[in-house]
Amino acid sequence: MDVKIDKLLGDERHSFLLEFIDTTLRGCGQVMFQNNSLTGAFFFGGIFFDAYLNNTPVIAWGCLLGTAVATLTGYLIIRDRTSLRSGLCGYNGCLVGAALPVFLVPTPTLWCVLILSSALSVIVATSISECLKGLKIAALTGPFVVTTWVVLLASYNFPQLVHMGLPATFLPQQHTHLLTHSYYHTEWLGAFNGVSEVFLFSNIVSGMLMCIGLACGSLWNVFYAVFSAVLSMLIALWLGGTLQGVDAGMFSFSAVLTGIALGATFSKPGMMSFCYTVIGVFFVVLMQGALNTALAPLGIPSLTMPFVLATWVLLLVHDKTVLQD
Amino acid sequence: MDVKIDKLLGDERHSFLLEFIDTTLRGCGQVMFQNNSLTGAFFFGGIFFDAYLNNTPVIAWGCLLGTAVATLTGYLIIRDRTSLRSGLCGYNGCLVGAALPVFLVPTPTLWCVLILSSALSVIVATSISECLKGLKIAALTGPFVVTTWVVLLASYNFPQLVHMGLPATFLPQQHTHLLTHSYYHTEWLGAFNGVSEVFLFSNIVSGMLMCIGLACGSLWNVFYAVFSAVLSMLIALWLGGTLQGVDAGMFSFSAVLTGIALGATFSKPGMMSFCYTVIGVFFVVLMQGALNTALAPLGIPSLTMPFVLATWVLLLVHDKTVLQD
Amino acid sequence: MDVKIDKLLGDERHSFLLEFIDTTLRGCGQVMFQNNSLTGAFFFGGIFFDAYLNNTPVIAWGCLLGTAVATLTGYLIIRDRTSLRSGLCGYNGCLVGAALPVFLVPTPTLWCVLILSSALSVIVATSISECLKGLKIAALTGPFVVTTWVVLLASYNFPQLVHMGLPATFLPQQHTHLLTHSYYHTEWLGAFNGVSEVFLFSNIVSGMLMCIGLACGSLWNVFYAVFSAVLSMLIALWLGGTLQGVDAGMFSFSAVLTGIALGATFSKPGMMSFCYTVIGVFFVVLMQGALNTALAPLGIPSLTMPFVLATWVLLLVHDKTVLQD
Repeated sequence: MDVKIDKLLGDERHSFLLEFIDTTLRGCGQVMFQNNSLTGAFFFGGIFFDAYLNNTPVIAWGCLLGTAVATLTGYLIIRDRTSLRSGLCGYNGCLVGAALPVFLVPTPTLWCVLILSSALSVIVATSISECLKGLKIAALTGPFVVTTWVVLLASYNFPQLVHMGLPATFLPQQHTHLLTHSYYHTEWLGAFNGVSEVFLFSNIVSGMLMCIGLACGSLWNVFYAVFSAVLSMLIALWLGGTLQGVDAGMFSFSAVLTGIALGATFSKPGMMSFCYTVIGVFFVVLMQGALNTALAPLGIPSLTMPFVLATWVLLLVHDKTVLQD
Repeated sequence: MDVKIDKLLGDERHSFLLEFIDTTLRGCGQVMFQNNSLTGAFFFGGIFFDAYLNNTPVIAWGCLLGTAVATLTGYLIIRDRTSLRSGLCGYNGCLVGAALPVFLVPTPTLWCVLILSSALSVIVATSISECLKGLKIAALTGPFVVTTWVVLLASYNFPQLVHMGLPATFLPQQHTHLLTHSYYHTEWLGAFNGVSEVFLFSNIVSGMLMCIGLACGSLWNVFYAVFSAVLSMLIALWLGGTLQGVDAGMFSFSAVLTGIALGATFSKPGMMSFCYTVIGVFFVVLMQGALNTALAPLGIPSLTMPFVLATWVLLLVHDKTVLQD
Repeated sequence: MDVKIDKLLGDERHSFLLEFIDTTLRGCGQVMFQNNSLTGAFFFGGIFFDAYLNNTPVIAWGCLLGTAVATLTGYLIIRDRTSLRSGLCGYNGCLVGAALPVFLVPTPTLWCVLILSSALSVIVATSISECLKGLKIAALTGPFVVTTWVVLLASYNFPQLVHMGLPATFLPQQHTHLLTHSYYHTEWLGAFNGVSEVFLFSNIVSGMLMCIGLACGSLWNVFYAVFSAVLSMLIALWLGGTLQGVDAGMFSFSAVLTGIALGATFSKPGMMSFCYTVIGVFFVVLMQGALNTALAPLGIPSLTMPFVLATWVLLLVHDKTVLQD
C-alpha cells in the first residue's frame, strides 16, 4: 500500500512541495526500512502522540525538522535521485532530530546545531555508504549514530549545548548480587515500547501506531518487529537484565530493527531467514549490553549502534552460509 | 607430519565422526596457524595438563567444547568446505571456549552462552574475512577477540554472567617511580609461558608441549615462537615493564603469534622475513602496552588483539616494501 | 616555486645526500600537503624559532630527526619511489618526532623509541594507504596519530617512557555554568597559533613563518589556512568553547589542515569547494570537541585525528554530490 502524495492530488502547481512532503514522510518510514509515505505518517503520528502526552513537543518537532532538513539537503546536493526519492536521505536526519532534544536543552543554539547536524547526517551517510559499497551492505542507521555521538561528545566541551538526560559517566562495575529471573513480573506489552524506543521514547500506544505503519508495507514487518522485541526481552531477562530496562524496551529497540532488517527486508521471509533472525536477535542483545558498558565512561547512549553492528555482521555472511537460499 | 585421522583408521562406518574429530583438532592447531591434527592434539594436551594441575578443568573442557561447537557450526552453515576442513572454523571457538571460563563463573548460564558464542564466532569470522577479502589479509584471531569482548562487556549488564578474574576498571595512571632494568632477575624460561598464554594461562611445561605441537608443522614455527617470546621480553624489560608481567608471558603471547605469523606462516623464512618479524615484535609489544591502557577503563583484557592489529599492519605492506621478495 | 636542492647545486658527487635533504624538507612540507622543499624549510624555521625561544630545542630536533629517519626508512624499504621523492614517507615521522618530546621526557630510551616509531610510521602509513586505496582517499596524518597514540598509550605501562605534559585522565563532565560569548576578548591573531599548533605548539610568529612556507606553494593555501582558523575560532566561541583554548589554537589546528585539504589541495578552488570547506570546518570543530571528550578517560591528546576523520568523510562524498564539479 504505497501512496505517492504528489500523484494523489494531481495538482501540477504544487508538485514540488507535495513531492517534498512525500519524500520527507518516506524519510521517516525508512527508519524502519519502509519506502512508504503512509508508514512515515503513522510513525510521526506515534511520535507526536507521545510528545504531546508527555509535554515534550520539542522532541516531535525536532524529529520532523530533522527529517525535512535532511531531505532538503538531499535535494540540494545528492546526485542519486532514486535513493533520495525513496527517503534514504531523510531517515538519519529524522533520528538526529529526535535524539538531540532528548539529551540537550532546546536552546536556540541547539536548534541551529540540530539543523546543521541533520544536514551533516546526509554527508556522513553518503560517506559511509561509499565505504560499504564494496561489501554490498547498507549504512543502516550508522550515520545517525555517528553524527549524534559526535554532537553529544562535543557537547561536553561546548557548554552552549546544555546537557539534559545524558547518562552520567562512570567506570563499569558489575552488580554484586544476582537478580532472580522475573518472567512473570514482566510487562509483555513492553514489546511495543521496544518499537517506539527506536525513536528514543517508551510508549506502548505509539509502538502500536508504528506497527500499523509497518503493516502498510507488509505484515511480515509487524511479525518480526513484535517477535524480535519479545525474544530480546526473554534473552535479556534470562541473562539477568534489569526488569525496568527490559519493560522500557531498552534491550528491544535494536532487536526490533534487526528483526525487520534480517527477517523481512534484506531476505525473503522463510524458515532459513527465521533462524537467521533468531541468531541476529541473540547477538544484538549481547551487543546492546556490551555497548552500554563500553560507552559508560563516555556518558553517551549506545543509540541504535548495537543493531547496526550486529546486522552488518549478519548481512556480511549472507553469501557464505546456507542460511540464505 | 600431517595425519588425517579419518583416513588412518580406514573405517567407513564412523567416517563422519572421525572426520569431525580430525577437523576439531585442526581447529585447535589453527590457533597458531597449523592445519595439523597432531599439533592440535599437543595443544589440547598442554591445556588439559595445566587445567588439571591447577584444579580448573572447566577451562580445558570449555576450550574443547568451544572448538567442537564452532566446528559443528561450520559443518552446518559454512559453504566453503576446504577452509572448514582445515580447521579454520574452529580456532576462534577454541579460544572463546578457553577465555570465557577464565573470566566468568562456570554456571549453567555461562555454558549456554559459551556454546552460543562459539557458534557466533563462526559467523563473526566469516563476516570479518569478508571485510578483509579485498585487502588479501586473514582474519587471524580477530573474531575470537571481538566475540569475547562483546560477551565480557555485556556481562557487566547481565549479572547472570558472574565475574571472576576480570581486570578491575580504572583510569590509567603512570607509575611515578622508574623501575630499574632487571634482566638478570628474569625467568627466561618464561618464554614458554608466552606460548601457553596464547590460551590464557601461564605454564612452562604446557608451553613446551605446544612447541612440540608446533614442531609437527615446521621447526621454523618453534624457532619464531621462542625467538619472538624472548625478544618481546627483552623489549618489555627495556621499556620498564613489570617483572611479574614479563615472566608470566603477558608481553609475549601476542609476540609469539606475530612471530609465527610473520616469520613462518605468511612469508618464506629468510633474512628479509626475519627483519620483518623483528619489526613486528617491537610493534606488538608497544601495541600490547597501548591496548592494556586503552581497555583499562572498560575492565576487559586485550586478549590477542595486539597480535591481530600489529600483524594486519605488517601483512598489508607486504607488496609495497622490499621486506618481501 | 619548487626548488630541487640536488639539481640546484649540480654537484654529482654529493647527489644522494642533497637529494636526501631535499626529500626530508619535502617530508616536512607534506605535513600541510606541500611537495616543496622551500615550504619544508620555512616550517622547520618556524619550529626551531619557537623551540629555541621556549628553551625546548629537543622538540625541534626531535621533529627534524623523525623526518629524516622516516625518509631514510622510505629509501630503505619503500618501492614507490615517486611518492617517496615527494616527501610522502616523511611527514608522519616529522609529526611523530615533534609529538613524542612534547609528551615524554627526552631520555635516551625516548630517543630510541622516537627513532623506531618514526621508522614504524612509514610502515603504518603504507598499511593505511593500502586500506584506503579502494576508496581513493589519502591517509592524511592518520598514520602519525595512530603511531603516536600507540606509543603514548603504551607509556602508561612502560615507565621508562616518563610522562610530561600528557593530559590527566578523567571521566568527562560538562561545566555547569554557561560561558558568555566572548568574541571581543578573543585574540584573533591566535589564528596563527592554529597554524603552528599543527606541529603541537602555539606561536604566532611561527604560524606566520609557516604561512610564508604555504605561500611558496599557492596563495590559496594561505587563504584557506587563515580563513579556516578564524572560522573555527568563531564556531568554537559560538558553542561556548573556552577562550584560552580558542586563543591557543586548540580548536583551529585541525581546521587549518581541513581547510587546506578541502579548499586548495583535493579540489580546485572555487565557489563549490568554498562551501565544501565551510561544511568541513564546522564538522571538524565538532569532531575536535567530540574526540577531546572520547579520549579524556585515556589521557591522550586527540592530535590531528579530528582533521583526519572529518576530511575523510568529506573526501568520500566528492563524486556523489554536486559540491564538486
